[in-house]
Formats: sequence, C-alpha cells, structure tokens
Amino acid sequence: MEKDLSFVRIPYADMYDTFLSALQKVGFTDDRAAKCAEVFAVNSVEGIYTHGINRFPRFISYIKQGYIRIDQVPALKSGFGAVEQWDGNLGPGPLNALHACDRSMEVAQQNGIGCIALANTNHWMRGGYYGWHAAKRGFAFIGWTNTIANMPVWGAVDPRLGNNPLVIAIPYKDHAIVLDMAMSQYSYGALDQYSTRGQSLPVPGGYDEQGHLTQDASAIMASRRVLPIGYWKGSGLSLLLDILAAVLSGGLSTQAITKQEAEHSLSQIFITIDLSRLNHFPGIAGTLDTIIQDYHDSHPEPGKEVHYPGEHVNKIREANLKAGIPVARKIWNEILSLR
Amino acid sequence: MEKDLSFVRIPYADMYDTFLSALQKVGFTDDRAAKCAEVFAVNSVEGIYTHGINRFPRFISYIKQGYIRIDQVPALKSGFGAVEQWDGNLGPGPLNALHACDRSMEVAQQNGIGCIALANTNHWMRGGYYGWHAAKRGFAFIGWTNTIANMPVWGAVDPRLGNNPLVIAIPYKDHAIVLDMAMSQYSYGALDQYSTRGQSLPVPGGYDEQGHLTQDASAIMASRRVLPIGYWKGSGLSLLLDILAAVLSGGLSTQAITKQEAEHSLSQIFITIDLSRLNHFPGIAGTLDTIIQDYHDSHPEPGKEVHYPGEHVNKIREANLKAGIPVARKIWNEILSLR
Repeated sequence: MEKDLSFVRIPYADMYDTFLSALQKVGFTDDRAAKCAEVFAVNSVEGIYTHGINRFPRFISYIKQGYIRIDQVPALKSGFGAVEQWDGNLGPGPLNALHACDRSMEVAQQNGIGCIALANTNHWMRGGYYGWHAAKRGFAFIGWTNTIANMPVWGAVDPRLGNNPLVIAIPYKDHAIVLDMAMSQYSYGALDQYSTRGQSLPVPGGYDEQGHLTQDASAIMASRRVLPIGYWKGSGLSLLLDILAAVLSGGLSTQAITKQEAEHSLSQIFITIDLSRLNHFPGIAGTLDTIIQDYHDSHPEPGKEVHYPGEHVNKIREANLKAGIPVARKIWNEILSLR
Repeated sequence: MEKDLSFVRIPYADMYDTFLSALQKVGFTDDRAAKCAEVFAVNSVEGIYTHGINRFPRFISYIKQGYIRIDQVPALKSGFGAVEQWDGNLGPGPLNALHACDRSMEVAQQNGIGCIALANTNHWMRGGYYGWHAAKRGFAFIGWTNTIANMPVWGAVDPRLGNNPLVIAIPYKDHAIVLDMAMSQYSYGALDQYSTRGQSLPVPGGYDEQGHLTQDASAIMASRRVLPIGYWKGSGLSLLLDILAAVLSGGLSTQAITKQEAEHSLSQIFITIDLSRLNHFPGIAGTLDTIIQDYHDSHPEPGKEVHYPGEHVNKIREANLKAGIPVARKIWNEILSLR
C-alpha cells in the first residue's frame, strides 16, 4: 500500500479547537480538555509533530482502551522535605506531568530545589514542553521519563532498554535553552520518516540484521536494533535514568512496563531549581549571554550552522502560526473524525 | 622519540604510601594527604589509571604552579533550603569534591535531596569516585563537572565545549551501579592509547582534518575534532551541563575557564538523594534485582558480553590487589622522584 504523503496546513486555532472537541467528546471536563489540547497544539506549532498532532489519535485510542483514565489526578504517596512521591493513577500523561512540574516548582520555592517522582503515569508526549513550562517561570529543570523497551543494551541484539528522554532547561532572556533528547540516536518516528522518503540517515542509527552499523533506516526498523547515543554511553545512561525513575517514584521500570499489554504506567522525574534563590541571580543573564556568544562564535563546517538546543523553536512557531501547522492529510482526517 | 611502553606492577600499599609521601612533601597536612592519596590509589586500583596514577604528576605540577592551593577548603557562599553554593577557593579537586559530596548528603538527610554547587574548584580526577562514595552510604548521586574547552559544538570545527563528565550512581546490594561518562566519545587519554598502540578505535571517535568521520585516533588528535556522544545530542548535553554548573555555582563556565592559562577554577554539581527517606525503601533492592536480571538476560552479539556500568570494578580491584597496579615504568619513576 502506498503511503499518502500529501500534507495540509491547519491554522493553530483550528487545530486547538479540533483537539478540544475530540477531548470533550471522550469525556474530559472543559478545563482539563483545554489544558490537554494546548499541550498537543503547542507541541505541533513548535514543530514536534511526532509528539503533538501525529500522536493525538493514539492518545484517544489509549483512552478508549482504558490505558489512560481521563478523570484521574495524581495523589501524594509520600514526601520528605524537597522529595515527593506521587501516584499518577494512570491519568492523562500531559496533565499528570504538568501537575508534577507545577508541584516541583512549589516545592522548589520553599526548598530551593524540588524533586517530584511520579509513578503510574502515561506518556507525557514531548518532554521539552515541561522544560519550557518551568523555564518560562524562572526555574531550571531536569526531568526524564522511562518508556517501554525499544533499544538493545550495548553489545546485545534484543530491546531491554527504553529510550528514556531526558530534558534539561534553563530560562534565557525572554526565551529558554531546552534540551530534549531520547537515548536512542533516532526515534522510530524519525526512522520511519527517512525510510518513507528513501533517504539515508545523516549518521549511523543502528544495526542491520547482519549486525553491521548502518545509515539505512529501513534496515534498522527491520532489525529493531536502534543505536544508543554514544554506543555504551547512552546505553548506560538509559539504564541509570530508568533505575532512578523507578526507584525514586516506587513505580514501574522499563522491564515491568514492557511486560504489560501496552506502554502505560510510566515513571517520571521532575527536578526544578528556583533560580531566584541563588545569590548571584541578577548575574545569570550575563553568564548565559557570554556562554551563548562564545557558542555562536564557533567556526562551522562548510554549509553548517551552530544552534543551541531550543534556539529554533520561536522561528518554527512563527512560521507555523503564519502558514498553518503541516500535517499529513490522512492524520488530519482521522482527527477530524474524532470530534 | 620512541615511547617507553614497559610496565611495572606496584602493590596498592606501596602506591598509596608513595602518593602520601609526595603529598606531604609538597606541604599537605597528614589527614589531607591521606584523603587525597586514597582517591588517587583507589582510582588506580579500580582501573581508572588516567584519573589516578597517570595524572598524579600533573596534580603535583599544578600545586607547584599555584593553580591548586593545598591548604584551601570550601566556604559556604549562600544557601537556601536544600541548595547551597560553595566556593572551592582553588583547593585540591578531590578534597573539595569529597567535601561537597559529604555536605550534599548531610543536606539530603535533612531535606530528602541535597544540591551543592561548587565554584572555583579543581579537577576532581575520576568523577565516579564520588558516585561510589555516595552510593556506599545509601544515597543516589547525580553530579557533573565542567572542563576546559576540548570538543567542538556539533557542526563546528573548533573546541568550545568541555567534555563535562556526568556521574549517576545508586547503591546495589553491597555494590553500586555507577555511570561515569564524559560527553566526548573518547577522552584524549584514550585516543593517545589507541594511537600509541597503532590500534583502530572500536567506533568512530571524531573527524580527520578533511572533515571525515574516522576511527583513526592519530587523525583525531591532529584535528582536535573529537566527537560528542550521539553527535548533536552529546553536544547539547555538554552545553546544558556547563550552563547549570556555572549558573548554579556562580562560578566559571567552560568559556571562562578556557580563557585562563590552565584548567582550574572549575564548576561542579553534587546532587544526592537519601534513599532511606523513600516510602518503599525496603523494596528498592528487589526493584534493582529485577532490572539487572532482565538487563543480564539480554542476548549478546556473538563474542560480546553485557555489563552494567561499574559492574567490572570489583573484579579489576581484586586483580590489581593481587598482581599489583600496572603503571608505565616512566610514570612510576617520575612519581618516585616526587617523594
């Protein structure tokens, strides 16, 4: 079957309204539908389509299958000082994550730092959303999630590790510097895009079935042997992020998540630091300016440019606000049918 | 000039005593000399020679040049709740780091989590040492340091980023799981070893002067274009770790460190979490057992084995305690002359 590659461009307001209607239709209260629609719409307008518009149908499907429980909210299980353990009660991932992020900032306002460990939650979509959320409010953010097993341990062939996205963010002027990176070199979504377009990956992304490192996305999708960033290093980092998420939250590890019928009951960490409590707070902007100035002074390779993580977001948002958010016609039609 | 590749094996006690004498000779008090000698000796016996025995001569040289001030101790600059900013006063890196790690655990005992940001310190040698130190005492550890610029930003050719090692550790039975990873695929020390032996790197480690990705360590040493782990991802992570270290500590960034005459006045972060305060504390060992069991159940590639970060350390320590710690004859003779 040939894939329908035709795209349409949808104005932000139309996309938001469509999400909102679809969420209300499956039973969300108005305010929770609005919050959730905003996460999906913002992720889309900021160019993270894989964790915005393109993932919306699966979000609705998981609700219908009972993996995501739309009326559930996180509950405090235990707290000591600046560390709190919460149970996400299988509520919607974006709403649970926003709750945990907000609570982390409240704790940080009292204690300088806040660490919220959230068990039994669902996919937070784009982790960077919560980094931006905290940074816009003046907080540094370090957070991560575990996932279902989708990447082999370094030296092995079968998936035992999650790609466990890690987010680190800090406010910068009226903007933010936001790193949002999975532990695999490419996501399956990205591999699928390269494969569909018949394009070679820019750098090796995994192994083919013969065990050779390759830039052929289709071969990696066939072997399921995606590459951890930095080989043994990303493999180790993925393991430690999963361990900390499961241990600190008292929730499920990648191993336990993978034994389920679908990817739910994830464990997530939200650490925030209240920068206004630092004794050189007024000097932070200057420090960042100097660092970013030097970073931008890099001598690029011919034909390349140097950008810090998150630098493009404003430009992408503006372009998509102007021209509409690009989405495959097939996906948009599917979402329209959910209203 | 041909390199002298001959090695000797030195018993742990002899190596420790030699470090101790050399440190006392340059003016360390007995107890500080003992602590410092132990860091160098333990790093060596645990196989991290590049940040143990092999770096000891440079440590002494930095003391003699005044970059490291042996009698200085960290001072509290500012604190709010569980976040404290300390000035390392250019004291010895390992002693400053141990102080910050211990203080972080004290704060965590009171607040669940402790975050110590240390400015104006010196090279901590092996970051994993502090991960083990915290894990042996029942704490989870997340810490990192910035460094002098030694790695180009992704897409650029001149070094602007540090390789900023990141350490994450957690206790596991009578052992620990300890990740200690720099943001470059290989350290210059590792490149030098492969180059000296005429061996190809196991995976690409950087670019040659023509801009081609290569496994030729000598070519990378010539271009100084070491590869960040995961290409753009390790580049971004390195930037964010530097930013957080500099901003939270109020200390120098990689950019500012690099403008100095030598690598000193580093910024470091020591976050610890008191695991005994978690409400499922007795269940942690079981969670870790299940994760590690599944990890070890991976199907390895032919001829490969799967190990978690830090798993080898006990074995290496035992072997080196039995046979002596291997060290190049030339380096050992140099250290003997420092007594």
